[in-house]
Parts: sequence; structure tokens; C-alpha cells
Amino acid sequence: MYKVDLNSDLGEGYGLYTIGMDKEIIALISSANIGCGWHGGDPVVMDETVRECKEKSVAVGAHPGLPDLMGFGRRNMSISPVEAKAYAKYQLGALQAFAKSHGVPVQHFKPHGALYNMAASDEKLAFALAEAVYEVDPDIIFLGLANSCMIRAAGECGLIAASEVFADRAYKADGTLVARSQTGAMIHDTELCITRVIRMVKEHKVKAITGEDITLKPDSICVHGDNLKAIELIRAIREAFMEHGIEIKNIRSIVSNHVQ
Amino acid sequence: MYKVDLNSDLGEGYGLYTIGMDKEIIALISSANIGCGWHGGDPVVMDETVRECKEKSVAVGAHPGLPDLMGFGRRNMSISPVEAKAYAKYQLGALQAFAKSHGVPVQHFKPHGALYNMAASDEKLAFALAEAVYEVDPDIIFLGLANSCMIRAAGECGLIAASEVFADRAYKADGTLVARSQTGAMIHDTELCITRVIRMVKEHKVKAITGEDITLKPDSICVHGDNLKAIELIRAIREAFMEHGIEIKNIRSIVSNHVQ
Amino acid sequence: MYKVDLNSDLGEGYGLYTIGMDKEIIALISSANIGCGWHGGDPVVMDETVRECKEKSVAVGAHPGLPDLMGFGRRNMSISPVEAKAYAKYQLGALQAFAKSHGVPVQHFKPHGALYNMAASDEKLAFALAEAVYEVDPDIIFLGLANSCMIRAAGECGLIAASEVFADRAYKADGTLVARSQTGAMIHDTELCITRVIRMVKEHKVKAITGEDITLKPDSICVHGDNLKAIELIRAIREAFMEHGIEIKNIRSIVSNHVQ
Amino acid sequence: MYKVDLNSDLGEGYGLYTIGMDKEIIALISSANIGCGWHGGDPVVMDETVRECKEKSVAVGAHPGLPDLMGFGRRNMSISPVEAKAYAKYQLGALQAFAKSHGVPVQHFKPHGALYNMAASDEKLAFALAEAVYEVDPDIIFLGLANSCMIRAAGECGLIAASEVFADRAYKADGTLVARSQTGAMIHDTELCITRVIRMVKEHKVKAITGEDITLKPDSICVHGDNLKAIELIRAIREAFMEHGIEIKNIRSIVSNHVQ
Repeated sequence: MYKVDLNSDLGEGYGLYTIGMDKEIIALISSANIGCGWHGGDPVVMDETVRECKEKSVAVGAHPGLPDLMGFGRRNMSISPVEAKAYAKYQLGALQAFAKSHGVPVQHFKPHGALYNMAASDEKLAFALAEAVYEVDPDIIFLGLANSCMIRAAGECGLIAASEVFADRAYKADGTLVARSQTGAMIHDTELCITRVIRMVKEHKVKAITGEDITLKPDSICVHGDNLKAIELIRAIREAFMEHGIEIKNIRSIVSNHVQ
Repeated sequence: MYKVDLNSDLGEGYGLYTIGMDKEIIALISSANIGCGWHGGDPVVMDETVRECKEKSVAVGAHPGLPDLMGFGRRNMSISPVEAKAYAKYQLGALQAFAKSHGVPVQHFKPHGALYNMAASDEKLAFALAEAVYEVDPDIIFLGLANSCMIRAAGECGLIAASEVFADRAYKADGTLVARSQTGAMIHDTELCITRVIRMVKEHKVKAITGEDITLKPDSICVHGDNLKAIELIRAIREAFMEHGIEIKNIRSIVSNHVQ
Repeated sequence: MYKVDLNSDLGEGYGLYTIGMDKEIIALISSANIGCGWHGGDPVVMDETVRECKEKSVAVGAHPGLPDLMGFGRRNMSISPVEAKAYAKYQLGALQAFAKSHGVPVQHFKPHGALYNMAASDEKLAFALAEAVYEVDPDIIFLGLANSCMIRAAGECGLIAASEVFADRAYKADGTLVARSQTGAMIHDTELCITRVIRMVKEHKVKAITGEDITLKPDSICVHGDNLKAIELIRAIREAFMEHGIEIKNIRSIVSNHVQ
Repeated sequence: MYKVDLNSDLGEGYGLYTIGMDKEIIALISSANIGCGWHGGDPVVMDETVRECKEKSVAVGAHPGLPDLMGFGRRNMSISPVEAKAYAKYQLGALQAFAKSHGVPVQHFKPHGALYNMAASDEKLAFALAEAVYEVDPDIIFLGLANSCMIRAAGECGLIAASEVFADRAYKADGTLVARSQTGAMIHDTELCITRVIRMVKEHKVKAITGEDITLKPDSICVHGDNLKAIELIRAIREAFMEHGIEIKNIRSIVSNHVQ
């Protein structure tokens, strides 16, 4: 029996501004990355999102971003490891307050946007984030890019790391993602996305953009809820999982198996 | 033997901006109200301030403010109780992350500036804040204006309330503070401040601006660290306390006696 | 021949966040109130919105708000007249830069949300805003609530004032708006909205919620673009105007007639 | 007769936060770079700073920064040229409103902190900023790093460019600054600073950190007002200028000579 988590970003509205199809997506995933008020999300939105996740038995995670609401946390910023660590703690703590209020644990921590991308290639940043999580709560799972230094940093810090893969992104031979700016970075063919994901889950393999097979062991698959097409892809993935005997379980369930 | 807490606002710098004489004041107080990043304070400052408080055995408290950095949280804003509750949880959670990291408890919660003033006279707001604290951690003490609805709200929500008094502010006959905009609101005479504080601590009495004696039982005295004169007032108060056999203890120690 | 302006709020998106049906509404109005980056709007959005207004020959105006993006500028804040004046200048100047770049004038200035409401009843605030506009550019028209102190302040400061009325709001006998929190504040019947607007434009009269006729001389009618129903109301108003021989002209054209 | 401008950053306080010795420095310089509310500065501060500059006959310039108050605009952010252009216009327009109110022109535009550093080496960013200024007001002088692409971009866009040099920074053989992170980047010896500045002004030469002479023609010298030592350096420079017959004139006066 195969198992994998489906994670998606939720709770990124801000005041009157809404973004993402939270209501639709929450019914389709097992883990939610919840905006913590910096790149998106505000305290009222966070509270509502945690409540809805609890109702739908979706596990909640902190999704801290850069202090750049205007850029939705997607623009690289040269923050220091000391700053990154403090920013991560601040946002994680804020989410914990809502999780505590609703009587649910914070299952995982996944950096958002540019912070994620920077930490996937900058070891010092990866360690700063992992240390932040460990010092606040060592039971929280660190969700990072499969094969990246985030996974290694989390492990070395004493955290359980969970490896994330992408259904609709091309990979390089070294296991990292092809940059969005490059041709072929995004895979638009739904069937191809599904075939790749199934193979990643069952065989721990995916073909790189240069043709080689690379190895990656997915604990969680990142899906998006930006638009109807994205929602359709999730539905298609879920259907394919049923056919292939792949169960959708939250990250905690997945990594618990690892440990044993 | 008399006991009382001395509390002051700390950790309100922001990025390169510094404010307040934190280094001087931290040696003179028993409880610190730490800015939580909205009216002042940022994650790096919060982390450092908690570390310094731990070193000096000063108890730490959350000091959440309105989302108004430009006005330092001192301008009334018509936020709803739902918003106030979520804002309080967010900021309290953020501080808890740093407290957790340094292995110290968050002793208390004291709203900042305009949020404090509004909650002292708006019962719905007072309850929203008290509920926020209770739902995040019922062991945290709510520090509010003596005789105000904050104290009542905290008690009714199941929290331990601590009553705060001011050494340098005039009181009205109903036990509330004379507004700063009115003549005589501030007491500038150091000797008079000290006499009043001593009487509050020993006799639970202070003379209102209109001449009557009012009753108030101080758990904590608010002192300021804005400038050298303010620091001098704290030193003078501490000296007077020595002479009058008043011990300075943090809020937890004070209210523990209550309970027993 | 009757003439009146139709104004609406545009350009209130922020970064990735969008709000309002700008594309639909821009084809239906004669003057646009453009968010200036505080309650909504960001520089990139402002630039695009001015460009689109120019293309559609819609006159542009500054729509400055309170420093409260999280509350979309809709929550009262106790800012001082000195602050209000500086905030107004800052945001007006920012919009002027984009207007200058596109070779169009800033036709008018209309405060947003809570700033508008506060200035409609607080004379000091009204004068602070009017002085701000006058000192930056005395040719800019001040668009304010008909019969309010904003109109008087603008006139006394040497500005041309334009009176704004609302199609879907109930009025009190003194000519001010019934607060949204009160029953009957909003008029949901499209036919009634249209009848009232036509009468305001042709007869300068509208029936107050208490039954009396009040006098108000509309230079501009505020319409909304929040949703499809709102867009439908504008279309219905435009159609009714055609039938009643009421021409839609921008504010500058309307008030130029006054002056002569 | 030699002439050069002395410029410094002013008006970077924010709300209750103050930074820099504005009062002391304003008496010693000929041009002020005024914070525009993003990396520092707020509308009230901007208004006061322009007023003070006018009183002391110091020319005012816009000093726009990145949207990063927490980092004081000193952290690189990967903003696009479209964003940079819009951000520059927004902040420049805001300052113009205050300059207009006080009846003084905006003399120059100088990007702040990381925006300056990025534009000194990224041609697309340099052009975006120069175009922004040109489209808002082609008479405004662009003040940028001597020999950098900012100077070239400004010239090609049709602006007058002014070349800035630093008294206390080491230069590389290619005319750019040695990065602050490298050893020897800062020159702490006051006498050496002065000798270098005098030579730059008189001979248009300075010795690179690797020993070669490089050519640079200073229109303006950047000085700082962070602390007493910095103020002392300015006083020493001014004294040396007297002895060497170097007159301090604002940028407009300097570049007017160029043009003729």
C-alpha cells in the first residue's frame, strides 16, 4: 500500500483581499500551509483557516514568508540567517496561537515562496530556519524540497524532515527544480503530471529534463488552488491515486512510518 | 511585608530604529512588557529582549499593540472585538515562540497604548482580549488598569488578573485615569509620586484629582524608560521601597499570594 | 440640459491581490478615484490604472486613505489634523507623479473610507485635507459629501468643491447620510435608487428617511464596482439618464459651469 | 575656483522613531536626500525636513528606497524594472508634494541603500529609475555613483546626471566601490579621507585599493550624520575646503557649470 500527502497553500487573503480557492481546495488535500501574515494572511484569516482545516480534518502547518506583502513574498531578499531565524519563529509562534486555540497541533513548517527557494539552495538559511523550528517545537515536521539542503538541515537539527515534490515542475539531473524562467519548467499536460507523480510515489523516480532518471522519495506533493484548472489537476491526481492504490494521508502519518 | 511588581515597556525598537533605554531599565524592574512587532518591536529585537530579560531574571510579558507602527500604537482605531481577539492571539503567539526558545514562560499579557486605553473603557474589547489570552494559555496573567473592566473581564474569563497603577498619573474619583489631555493629568513632582505609590502599596488608597480617597490594590506599578528623568524616578521609587520595607517581586509572585 | 458626473473607486488592488471590477466599471464612469497605496493600490497598480483611465477618457482623482491596509482604510483612526494634512499631501503627490507621466491632470481629490466619513463630520480634519490639496495644487477639485463641512472647508480654502451624492444610501433630515449600521441605510431597490438620483439631479431634492424633502445639488454621483449587481445598477442609471436627458460629464466639466 | 556639493541623507525618522543627527548636519551640507516613507521617513517627517532645508537654504532631493522599513532599505530585493520605475515615481511624487507646498524645487533624485547599490551595477534597474525621473520631471538631476551605469542611464534618458563620490570608502581599479564586507572598504583615518577628497575635487583622481590611480569627477560628496564622529568628519572636510579654495555649492549650481 502506497501513501503520500497532498499539501497546498491556504489562508493567504489579507483584510478585504481574497486569493486562492480555499473552500474548494480544503476538501481535496491532507495538509495545509497557512499564511502567517507577512507575505499573505492576517490574524482573522489565520483563525478562520485553522478552524476550517480542523473541521475538514486537514493538518495545519506554518507557511512563513518574507516581509514583502507587496510582492507576496515571491521576491528574493538578502536577509541574514539571524533575521531568517527570528522571522521564522515569529510567524510560527503566531500560527501556534491559533492552533492552540482550536485544539489542533501545528503539524509542519514550510517556508513560502522566495524564502523556500532561497533556503533550498542556501545552506545557512536552511539551517537558520530548521533551528528556529527546533527551538520553538522539535516535534514540528520540516517540509522542504526533496533532495535539497533544507532536508539535510532539518535532519541535522534534530527535526523530522518531509520531502516535497511537484507534480507540474520539471527537474534537473541533480534533483533540483528547473527555474520557472526557463523553457519547459512547467509541465502543462495533465496526463504527464499524473504519470510522473504516480511513478515518484511508487518507484521514487522521475525523469529529469535532460533525460536521466533521478531518485526522490516523496512524502508530500505540492498542489495549487489558484484557479479552476489547478483544482481540476488535484481532482485528476486523486482519481489516479485511487486507481493505483495510493492513499492520501497527512504528513505526520507518512513520516511516522519512516521512523519506525 | 509588602510586595509589588515594577513593570515597564521594552523591546520597542524596529530594524535600525531604537527607542527607550532598555539596558538601563532592565536592571530596575521585575516584569517587562515586550513589543510584539505591530506598534513597535521586530522579531530580532524580540529575541534579544527576551534573552536579556532572562539574563537579568526579569519576567517577560506580551505587549501587543494596534497595527499602527507609524503612530506607535497610540492612536485609537475602531477595530472590532473579533479583530482585537485575533490580533492579540497573533502577537501573543509570536512572543511565546521566543520565550519558548529561551526556556522562559510568558508571565503576563498587557495591551499597549491605545489598545490598553480602549480596552480599559470598552467592555467588549476587554473581553475579546481576555478570551484571546485564555484560549492561547490560561496560565498567563492579564495585566490591566486597576478597577477597570479589563480586570473584571480577565477574571470572568478564568484568567488571573493583575492590577496596574501609575506613579505619575492623576486619578478620577471613579478610579480611572485623568486623560493626558487634561490639566493635572501628569504628576511631575518626584516626591509626590513616591508618596502616592507608597500609600497605594501600603494602604490601597490614593487621592483623586477631586480630593476624595479612592481604593485600588496595586499588583504592579508601571514605570517608564523614555529618558533619564524617567530612569531617575524608578531609582527614587526603588530607594523609597527599601526604606518602607516594600519588596519588588514579579507579577507571578505577587498574584500567587492572592490566590492562596 | 442636465449634467452630472459618475465617480467610482478604482485601482485598489495590491501586489497579487485584486479587488473590484475595474475593467467593467471604467467604461461606465466619467471620473475615477484612484487608490494611493495606503488603504489599497500600489505604485504598479496606480500606473496601470491611470493609463487605463487615460485610454477611456475617464478623469483621474486621488483617493487617499488611512494607513490601514489590513482594514482597507475603513476603520476610524484618531489621527491629528497635522497628520491628516501630511498624509493627504503624500498620497496626492504620489498620484500626481503617475498622472504627470501619462500627461493627464489630477482632476480631483476625494478622501477614502473612514477618512471621508471622519472629514464629513470633523471640521478640523476637513480643513486639514482641503489645505493639503490647496498647498499642493489649488486647481484640483475637492470632491466631498454634499452639504458636509468638507464642501465648506474646500470653498473657504480657495478650492473648487464638488458635491457628491449617493444613489443607494438613505439621508437624514439634516442632509447627512444614515449610518450603515442603522436599518434602512442602504436602498436595495434599483428602481427607487434611480428615481431618487433623477430627482436629485433635476430638482436638487431627495426625501430623507424621516420623510422630509432635503435639498442637495449633486455634481457627482458615487457608484460602486464591487460586484455584478453594482455594475448592473450603474448600467440602469446610465439608461435612465439617457431617457431623462441627463448627460454624464466629468467633474471638471460640471464645476466649470458653476463658476461661470 | 573649485566647487563641489556636500550631500547627506536626512528625514529618515518614522513616527516616534528618530534616526540621524538632522539638526547638526543640515547646517553643514548643501543638498539633502530626503527619505520618502518606504525605507524611512513618514509624511510628517518629510514635511518638517523640507521646511528645515528651505530655512537653511539646503537643496532638497528625493531619496526613494525599497519597500523594506524593517531592513531600512539596505537589503537587496529582486524587484523588476517595472516595479522599480513605479516605486521611484511614487516616492518622488510624494516628495514633490511637500516641496511644492514649501515653494522649493526638488533638485535631485538619489536612490537609497540597496536600491542605489543594485542600480549601480544593474543597467536595467538604472534605466528604470532614470526613466521614472524623466517622465515625472526632466529637470530633476539624477545623483548616482560616479562612473556607474546610473550616470550613463541618466544621460541617455535625457536627464542631467551628477556624479557622487565617497570620502570614506575605498575604490576598486574599475572605479566602483569596494564592498563593505571586504577588508579595507572603509577609510577610518580622517586625514586620509580629507586628502583623498581634496585630490578628487582638484585633480579628478583617487588611488584604488590596488594602487592604481583612477579618474572620477565629483559633483557631490556623500557625507553621513549617523553619529558625532561623522559630524566631525564633515566639519574637517569643510575646513580643509576653505584652506584649499573649494567652495561648497548645491548640485544644481555644480551641474549648471557643466552644461555651459
